[in-house]
Amino acid sequence: MAHEDLRLSRVGVVQSPVVEVRDTDWGEVVSEIRIDEPYIAGLRSLKDFSHAVVVFYMHLSSFGLEDDLVRRPRGLETMPEVGIFAQRAKHRPSPLGITAVKIMAVRGSTLTVKGLDAVDGTPVVDIKPYVPHFDRVEGATTPEWMKQLMQGYF
Amino acid sequence: MAHEDLRLSRVGVVQSPVVEVRDTDWGEVVSEIRIDEPYIAGLRSLKDFSHAVVVFYMHLSSFGLEDDLVRRPRGLETMPEVGIFAQRAKHRPSPLGITAVKIMAVRGSTLTVKGLDAVDGTPVVDIKPYVPHFDRVEGATTPEWMKQLMQGYF
Repeated sequence: MAHEDLRLSRVGVVQSPVVEVRDTDWGEVVSEIRIDEPYIAGLRSLKDFSHAVVVFYMHLSSFGLEDDLVRRPRGLETMPEVGIFAQRAKHRPSPLGITAVKIMAVRGSTLTVKGLDAVDGTPVVDIKPYVPHFDRVEGATTPEWMKQLMQGYF
Repeated sequence: MAHEDLRLSRVGVVQSPVVEVRDTDWGEVVSEIRIDEPYIAGLRSLKDFSHAVVVFYMHLSSFGLEDDLVRRPRGLETMPEVGIFAQRAKHRPSPLGITAVKIMAVRGSTLTVKGLDAVDGTPVVDIKPYVPHFDRVEGATTPEWMKQLMQGYF
């Protein structure tokens, strides 16, 4: 399938106090997602869920095979060289961010969430309710280097 | 941002014994993701994780504001009319499927997974390691109708 066939629709935009890309300290950030007019009714009943999965298009991301296909997470010398599909780096072949967030409020066209790691102005392409049956994996394990990376995350 | 700016790259394709779209019974399905040649090295170290998040482009999906923006999950009379962002229906403004799967094997250009709800031939646009720190939400709650829907899922 040709590259240009895989298109998304913007359904809203992030309004965040964070305007510069960063790797950590997103957990307490409260942001708003302003839903575009045609899609506002799509928010109906979302407030009955405690959490959502926000899918956003990292418009500032770039990806180069040479630099980004295999790399050390966050460029740290202490990390091993691992493939892009084994890490959560921003510079990916398809620049999609997928983040589970806490739903703080749904009012009119605005969804207020906590923990969204997207800078101000990021296009939102989908929102799904967080459903433990699908999203919550019991007993998932990660390698030691990822545990070390996560220890410094917040 | 214009619609056509939000483009994705295909990184592989699903090979699944399931060839027709269905709503349930995906949990035990074992499928293979054949990674496209330029991206094969991106699999490095993925086998050190137990689970992955597969992001796929539901190429058979269609979305119409009138029929799909607010609808009853699976068209069931017993379900309330809820917005598309409060359900996991396939016909979405951006046709992205996001599924946590068990990693069975990584060999050469092939990633074998269990539980992927994508039909044979579906383009894969991203693979991320499942990281409990990000993906596993403690105490997430859903409305009663979703619990009922999930009871019949597998």
